Amino acid sequence: MNHRLLLAKRPTGMVDASTVRLDEVPVPEPGPREALVRVRYLSIDPTIRTWMDDAPGYLPPIGIGEVIRGAAIGEIETSNSDHYAVGDLVFGMLGWQEFTVATEGAGGLQTLPPGVEPTLALNIFGVNGMTAYFGLLDVGQLREGDTVVISGAAGATGSAVGQIAKIKGAGKVVGLAGTDDKCRWIVDDLGFDEAINYKTEHVGRRLRDACPKGIDLYFDNVGGEILDTCLGQLALRGRVVLCGAISTYNDKKRPTGPGNYRALIGRRGRMEGFIILDYADRFPEAQTAMLGWLAEGKLHHAEHVVDGLESAPDALNLLFTGGNAGKVIVAL
Amino acid sequence: MNHRLLLAKRPTGMVDASTVRLDEVPVPEPGPREALVRVRYLSIDPTIRTWMDDAPGYLPPIGIGEVIRGAAIGEIETSNSDHYAVGDLVFGMLGWQEFTVATEGAGGLQTLPPGVEPTLALNIFGVNGMTAYFGLLDVGQLREGDTVVISGAAGATGSAVGQIAKIKGAGKVVGLAGTDDKCRWIVDDLGFDEAINYKTEHVGRRLRDACPKGIDLYFDNVGGEILDTCLGQLALRGRVVLCGAISTYNDKKRPTGPGNYRALIGRRGRMEGFIILDYADRFPEAQTAMLGWLAEGKLHHAEHVVDGLESAPDALNLLFTGGNAGKVIVAL
Repeated sequence: MNHRLLLAKRPTGMVDASTVRLDEVPVPEPGPREALVRVRYLSIDPTIRTWMDDAPGYLPPIGIGEVIRGAAIGEIETSNSDHYAVGDLVFGMLGWQEFTVATEGAGGLQTLPPGVEPTLALNIFGVNGMTAYFGLLDVGQLREGDTVVISGAAGATGSAVGQIAKIKGAGKVVGLAGTDDKCRWIVDDLGFDEAINYKTEHVGRRLRDACPKGIDLYFDNVGGEILDTCLGQLALRGRVVLCGAISTYNDKKRPTGPGNYRALIGRRGRMEGFIILDYADRFPEAQTAMLGWLAEGKLHHAEHVVDGLESAPDALNLLFTGGNAGKVIVAL
Repeated sequence: MNHRLLLAKRPTGMVDASTVRLDEVPVPEPGPREALVRVRYLSIDPTIRTWMDDAPGYLPPIGIGEVIRGAAIGEIETSNSDHYAVGDLVFGMLGWQEFTVATEGAGGLQTLPPGVEPTLALNIFGVNGMTAYFGLLDVGQLREGDTVVISGAAGATGSAVGQIAKIKGAGKVVGLAGTDDKCRWIVDDLGFDEAINYKTEHVGRRLRDACPKGIDLYFDNVGGEILDTCLGQLALRGRVVLCGAISTYNDKKRPTGPGNYRALIGRRGRMEGFIILDYADRFPEAQTAMLGWLAEGKLHHAEHVVDGLESAPDALNLLFTGGNAGKVIVAL
């Protein structure tokens, strides 16, 4: 049988037991030119929470009664297609379920090159690494010597952003994280210049000390007050890369915006959003660079793996409570 | 004697009688290589209100007891300088006073070419026209076919933005203004495609009707709720040009920001501020273009002239009450 998690009820606030419903249906039969995929690793990403709301977004909301949408890695179990060989690892929007069918053509899945660890493929070679690379270099237009601030810095994306910034010649890289352990990790193991525990320290004051000339590039994963504080400390021609707003995704009412946005006028600043799917054509460029840095020992990564399909909702909540360091993955 | 208006007290909210103090000092004596300037026309701009607050900005606040800072056109009255001939019209930060001294070099004034109407020089050939031109084309990167929305559309800058957008091939230009007369003016005389009276109409609904494919370029002069509404209706890769935030300059507490800023992520949007002083080197390029459009009858303008130095504070308030259409100027 194929076990699946369906959206039972749109959450208000955090996802809880009533949000999803476990369902059991026969394993699907692949037709001609199709293959059966056994889902192995779910990529747990903050954006999944936004798809659960009945709100316009870059993808339509997940419908009530539909399988929870999410990126994942699976393994080809049986195949009627020349595109997929049994044993191949494939990546795509497989969803929160044990089995699905791979088709050819536009809806097809990406086959992973042999030898890439699946959990790593979901992290720095996957959406998070790509988001870090193109968000920092293309949207943010990192320049040598820049003072870079990153929120959610111990997360899968933030931790890669900081390391790429150092590799590419940033003058100073400051990360915000929510525990002292995470702060130590990003400084001691990942090479960030400074870390601020935003839960226990005064972010505005600490940033002013750490970035006396202002912030040239702020990579925003969280939104809310921290975005507002960083806007208020933007350097001349500073750039704000809007990657996510995780501090607001569970809000029950529409969040207020950053009052300091007006600093963009006086400082000639820019605030820009992006969606990594737009860069799919250029992923190989980033993946090649990341592979090189990994081989040189310049790029570190961490995965936080939890077991079992049914733990996926709790795994998603880890991103909001900050219970993870690095990439959250559910192993099936 | 030289009459001057000094900053007596920082305003909370609108400027009033207690904000400025009229002062009388001897007419200054120009030294060697200097000239005496009689101030003729004050340029009344929203940004002057921001300089009255004790807050960081792109220029330092006006000090208590200092002459109110402001751009103006003056006439050379006597001259000890080869740079300035008696009768020349000069432009610069002359301030709210009857006389000042022109120096040579870095602090020098720009001499107007003969034949340019001084009030026009303050409007489309001055800061407003330059702001419209570079804000729309350089910061906003207007593309042919764009749906453009402009707030403060009957103001000196907004009215120029809409006309330049039409000249440069915008698909649709929608202006927001605060009276039916202004709405008629920008459509009937200036060629905007549509106007919305933001004081009497439902802006969100009217914009949705006027811009069914979303807003490609929003030129923001006002901030506040209208900025938020436009962000919520941004088209894919939409751009928000932050020129000013006049709806917030008189706020007694820090205004909240636009909650819809998150739309910048899903729509891959960009919000960018600028200060026109940065473009000073490129003014001739814009002035040449504007002169051509003026000669071809494609560019219309309006000046709202009030008389007497002492009416300057009330003239400034016109910008906030919307009592003007076009450029507000004080004739001395």
